[in-house]
Amino acid sequence: MVTIRDVAKEAGVSVATVSRVINGSGYAHIDTKKAVDLAVSKLQYKPNEVARSLYKRKSKLIGLILPDITNPFFPELSRGVEDYLQRRGYRLIIGNSDGKQEKEREYINTFSQNNIIGIIASTSEYNDRNYKDLNMPVVLLDRTTEDLPAVYADQHAGGELAAAALMERGSKEIVIVRGPITIKPVRERYQSALELLQNTEGVNVQVLDSTLSFQGAKSCAKELFDKYPKTDGVIACNDIVASAILQEGLRLGRLIPEDLQIIGYDDIPMCALLYPALSTIRQPAYEMGEVAAESLIKMINKEPLTEQHIKLDVAFIDRQTTRKGM
Amino acid sequence: MVTIRDVAKEAGVSVATVSRVINGSGYAHIDTKKAVDLAVSKLQYKPNEVARSLYKRKSKLIGLILPDITNPFFPELSRGVEDYLQRRGYRLIIGNSDGKQEKEREYINTFSQNNIIGIIASTSEYNDRNYKDLNMPVVLLDRTTEDLPAVYADQHAGGELAAAALMERGSKEIVIVRGPITIKPVRERYQSALELLQNTEGVNVQVLDSTLSFQGAKSCAKELFDKYPKTDGVIACNDIVASAILQEGLRLGRLIPEDLQIIGYDDIPMCALLYPALSTIRQPAYEMGEVAAESLIKMINKEPLTEQHIKLDVAFIDRQTTRKGM
Repeated sequence: MVTIRDVAKEAGVSVATVSRVINGSGYAHIDTKKAVDLAVSKLQYKPNEVARSLYKRKSKLIGLILPDITNPFFPELSRGVEDYLQRRGYRLIIGNSDGKQEKEREYINTFSQNNIIGIIASTSEYNDRNYKDLNMPVVLLDRTTEDLPAVYADQHAGGELAAAALMERGSKEIVIVRGPITIKPVRERYQSALELLQNTEGVNVQVLDSTLSFQGAKSCAKELFDKYPKTDGVIACNDIVASAILQEGLRLGRLIPEDLQIIGYDDIPMCALLYPALSTIRQPAYEMGEVAAESLIKMINKEPLTEQHIKLDVAFIDRQTTRKGM
Repeated sequence: MVTIRDVAKEAGVSVATVSRVINGSGYAHIDTKKAVDLAVSKLQYKPNEVARSLYKRKSKLIGLILPDITNPFFPELSRGVEDYLQRRGYRLIIGNSDGKQEKEREYINTFSQNNIIGIIASTSEYNDRNYKDLNMPVVLLDRTTEDLPAVYADQHAGGELAAAALMERGSKEIVIVRGPITIKPVRERYQSALELLQNTEGVNVQVLDSTLSFQGAKSCAKELFDKYPKTDGVIACNDIVASAILQEGLRLGRLIPEDLQIIGYDDIPMCALLYPALSTIRQPAYEMGEVAAESLIKMINKEPLTEQHIKLDVAFIDRQTTRKGM
């Protein structure tokens, strides 16, 4: 392995001089610079970033914490972050916290001890003990707290859009399949949907609990039709669970959307490939990732943020599991 | 921020002594150790891992390169790697190469310059220039080369299983939708399926090109039925493309599996939630990840590998897009 000593020898200068030239710090004569550059290129010397960052206290590494990499919503979010950072010359490394506080804390420690200069956290449950005293910028993504800048989608509007879409299209016996209400955005969309439905005459609303993952989605779908066989409209906590409900409805011979309307949440890529294609509330996952990355880079560069909390719009995507011509 | 100097002052010893105690190197009296531990805990001192790793040349960080985090096969693979490492006290950080040589090279550089002690690479196209001279163990995952240890699934068997399943169940007009043949495992399964079908009398086989991603899957499905309307059996390059073909077949009114059988590849979690549920060739993604992580940790600990190349079995998962009672 080529060392800085080899470069110094090749260039005929001291190790300190090579260090100054490579780090762009202190004075070096133009000819000295040329000699060092030549030696670096001839020997294919790669400066050790660890050592350099100790000196310069600056790397280009950003850490992203995701709660569940196997839920297709998060890879989309992640791509938005990564593509933005890539364009700005930064690199992203990802840690999967699995929704566990302990794993999240371990990743934050790992990040803070290994040259990471900023963190984007899509944490399951924000715990400020994990983030205070971090000495680096943090942006929350798909989560909010008073304490930190955050980028998130308008969950309140999302819940209302879903409820309104079902009601306008004639559903009367509606089940809200809600995800874990300890997760704030999941709770918010559930609450706004519930509130709208409860305040509407002639609509009967039930609530069923579910996970957000593939595990458990099928049994939740079975439970729904067992408990509430008259259901003619479902608002699911996400598209995975909605897919399971769509499958179970078809298996039971329900006509969709004629007898049963289903609305998912997120708009993961698979929605458009289902048959019938899944109507859903679209969260702009990719854009959320981009905007969070933009905020973080501003903070790293000590530029002011125009907004601490950036709320992005959601939209109702009217595919084939909701009725037409209303 | 608490520094090692603060700890030394608090404990009444030199900085060098604190360093020896923290790193467990060299001699220190038991009372000295206690004094340092007390000071560390009282001041809540966190040793800088970057500085420590320079000294100890050892971290617990493993890097994983994935070609496309939005393809659900890879998050599964990644979870297998991560869960194994977690159990062994290592941490995983992930880079998404997007199937691009240039991005892959950048991640390898980032990893090698930032305390990573081993790499698991699920690279799109193995290029040895990216991996030689790395000075750290590398295990290829879902890819193979002569040069490096590798963990992969039996693609040859996978292609044959898919072809045999369709033929045994009576398909005569079969289309193989193949992915990019520059990707070796994709090419291998295509070739073995093609070979078996071409050597079978009474079977007519066509080949159609496709991507592996959500983008393009729909147009590929349309092209299939436009070009080969008589198709009664499809072997798709992966489950995403198979889902699009299933959707288009249903849209065109085909009875599945009676008129048209479809077999995917990978067995991503969504397969089981489609209606009809998708028959597929299961790659043991999670297990592949675990085994690759196990091999890498052995290499890091300088233990011998019993096998350089570990080939895991695939299986035909007989769901509802293939006929029963054959």
